[in-house]
Amino acid sequence: MKQIKITALRVVDLRFPTSRDHIGSDAVNVDPDYSAAYCILETDSALEGHGLTFTLGRGTDLCVAALNYLGRFIVGRTLSSITDDFVAFNRTLTDDSQFRWLGPEKGVIHLSTGALINAVWDLYAKSEGKPLWRLLAGMPAEKLLSAIDFRYIDDVLSRDEALAILTASEEGKAQRIESLLANGYPAYTTSAGWFGFSDEKIKRLCEEGLADGWTHFKLKVGGVPADDLRRGRIVRQTIGPHNRIMVDANQKWGVLEAIDRTNQLTELNPWWMEEPTSPDDILGHARIRREVAPTRIATGEHCHNKVMFKQLLQAEAIDVCQIDSCRVAGVNENLAIILMAAKFGIPVCPHAGGVGLCEYVQHLSAFDYLRVSCSLEDRVIEYVDHLHEHFLTPVDIRRGRYFLPETPGYSIEIRPESLKKFAFPEGEAWKS
Amino acid sequence: MKQIKITALRVVDLRFPTSRDHIGSDAVNVDPDYSAAYCILETDSALEGHGLTFTLGRGTDLCVAALNYLGRFIVGRTLSSITDDFVAFNRTLTDDSQFRWLGPEKGVIHLSTGALINAVWDLYAKSEGKPLWRLLAGMPAEKLLSAIDFRYIDDVLSRDEALAILTASEEGKAQRIESLLANGYPAYTTSAGWFGFSDEKIKRLCEEGLADGWTHFKLKVGGVPADDLRRGRIVRQTIGPHNRIMVDANQKWGVLEAIDRTNQLTELNPWWMEEPTSPDDILGHARIRREVAPTRIATGEHCHNKVMFKQLLQAEAIDVCQIDSCRVAGVNENLAIILMAAKFGIPVCPHAGGVGLCEYVQHLSAFDYLRVSCSLEDRVIEYVDHLHEHFLTPVDIRRGRYFLPETPGYSIEIRPESLKKFAFPEGEAWKS
Repeated sequence: MKQIKITALRVVDLRFPTSRDHIGSDAVNVDPDYSAAYCILETDSALEGHGLTFTLGRGTDLCVAALNYLGRFIVGRTLSSITDDFVAFNRTLTDDSQFRWLGPEKGVIHLSTGALINAVWDLYAKSEGKPLWRLLAGMPAEKLLSAIDFRYIDDVLSRDEALAILTASEEGKAQRIESLLANGYPAYTTSAGWFGFSDEKIKRLCEEGLADGWTHFKLKVGGVPADDLRRGRIVRQTIGPHNRIMVDANQKWGVLEAIDRTNQLTELNPWWMEEPTSPDDILGHARIRREVAPTRIATGEHCHNKVMFKQLLQAEAIDVCQIDSCRVAGVNENLAIILMAAKFGIPVCPHAGGVGLCEYVQHLSAFDYLRVSCSLEDRVIEYVDHLHEHFLTPVDIRRGRYFLPETPGYSIEIRPESLKKFAFPEGEAWKS
Repeated sequence: MKQIKITALRVVDLRFPTSRDHIGSDAVNVDPDYSAAYCILETDSALEGHGLTFTLGRGTDLCVAALNYLGRFIVGRTLSSITDDFVAFNRTLTDDSQFRWLGPEKGVIHLSTGALINAVWDLYAKSEGKPLWRLLAGMPAEKLLSAIDFRYIDDVLSRDEALAILTASEEGKAQRIESLLANGYPAYTTSAGWFGFSDEKIKRLCEEGLADGWTHFKLKVGGVPADDLRRGRIVRQTIGPHNRIMVDANQKWGVLEAIDRTNQLTELNPWWMEEPTSPDDILGHARIRREVAPTRIATGEHCHNKVMFKQLLQAEAIDVCQIDSCRVAGVNENLAIILMAAKFGIPVCPHAGGVGLCEYVQHLSAFDYLRVSCSLEDRVIEYVDHLHEHFLTPVDIRRGRYFLPETPGYSIEIRPESLKKFAFPEGEAWKS
């Protein structure tokens, strides 16, 4: 790798006024303006590293402020000084002795750490001339391990266990890459079932989804019970008995209510129930899972770090591990989570949508398939069909599958004109 | 209650340069500048409501920004409109549909919510002409219950169970108040055992502590094993076999290391081991507790909400419940946590120190004694002996016990001259 020095960090408060069309609405998030604290690592080369953390509008400025603070730990460093000892670098971000009081490793400061670390990986992959998924696919196991911090997780996953998983994945890797390139990675759509959509719109969008080759459809629930059931029946009747429905309550219920409400939806035969209660309630999810079986339980988009994921797995609280590309500290922490999920035999189905999450997570799922679980069984990446036009390398979705990018980097770079137009509050989109 | 309207919210970034003297140093927090995002509710009466959330210096500005955002939900409201339906008000703060993405109920935004809600209680108590502990002591059970949000905890504590606890506490309450006034509430000192202190200083401070009537001493550990043991022996030899040592690792270790390291300190006969590992690791604490028994496990100062405390109790992960007055959403959430701890029979020993935490938590422990557990057994409030001079009503500590204030409010009001001198970065204290 050529020596590249990071010379500046530029941060943008980027907000899209999606709430005007009820896009992204659910039982809890009623009016999101899909947004991002977006950062650009400027360097002394022609390359830039781009990263973002996804937010819902108000409060994005807090992540911008946190990113501007964290910049002190990266500006002036060479890329190789970071990637040669990635864990040490990441700890400079998470272990700042005063800043960590605001977490540690959760909320605003961890979301922002994720954006910065993802920007480093974008720069790293570009410097190697590869899309991130190919960089991860080809990286020697020892090098991958050196990027993973086993602190606080070595009681369930040792370095040697992780090494064994990564080493075993070499067998058949070339064929899996070929298969991915030819067939794509399976996906599901959330676009048909937002909370704010009318019955007619849901039916129409399900029909359109079927025509486009989708087989897995997510429906937002958590409203009046009769409404949830009526909307669910519309989806089931439209997509037929063999396609899959996933229902998502977005943390709406307490544990007892979640059990009742999930069991009331049994006739829909949901493939999973997502976020039935507080995202912090590991033991609550475990109890719900026991009492709604065989309905499967999914969560993770609000799971704030690897220690929480570790416990969701230990407690047998989930059937589906929904990693998020931004909420934890970027690629490195997700590598650890994906490895832990494999050890427990739980499939990883990333949370996506929002802005940039689809672009991000395709790389992580490819890593899971190529280097960790080596399986596509019961694995689907979330897909939502908006805001992709703002990316230089938007996701390529065909017949309900992600086809992976070949452009170097982490696919997260936003078009300069979009960065300008949707900058908050000065951009043109916010002037009206 | 006279109708009081909140007319403005004023927020101050307040930082004390405590790191210059190694005050507050431990294995993880090596150089804290004890700080606060401080807020003042201005009203159309002569009263003001004051609240703060404790921080360690850098990053306090994030909490200030969050408080300024949250101000929109309180400015213009009457005090009674809040206190008549406290849960509804608190949810306007925690459930803002865009802002909550940054948590929910954790990190920067929850710390800030705590400051604002505590300011409301300060104003509320002042308007009733009572110190907060007397307001809580005299409040009818139904009114107290109306201030507690059972969402996400009703699977372990029902409203009826809470009512039964509060109702039973009426018996003997008057005598307990008399006893508190006469004898104070037991405390322990953390001032002798900071990480950055020399052996000689620790010995001297323990001797001084004994002379001042202290019987419980905390020592910071998590350094080199031999150093921890040497320092621990100094404390034990100085205070003798009958006084108590508590050791505190401030999250330094992984689960396996925590077990080893705790067991290496057995000869000190520690009364508890505090924060042995990640504060998010409920199941990890439970395992540590099983494998270091009979050493007791304490945690909570970084436990970010009632859902996490619920699980620490459910998982039998702790012997000591260390509530924090700022990290959760203020008084209301702490009432819920104190009630849950009582149901599980776990003593509450609040985290204090920093700036303002001692002033705050004495009221919460009095509530626990007068209305919930009705016991002082195995209960001590942390005490650290600095920065109290900045408060209008500093804590009154005599012979290792807290004597409760009679001044109306939550005892958190800082002297105007201190607010000015330590405002960051413009205050005189930061000019040099």
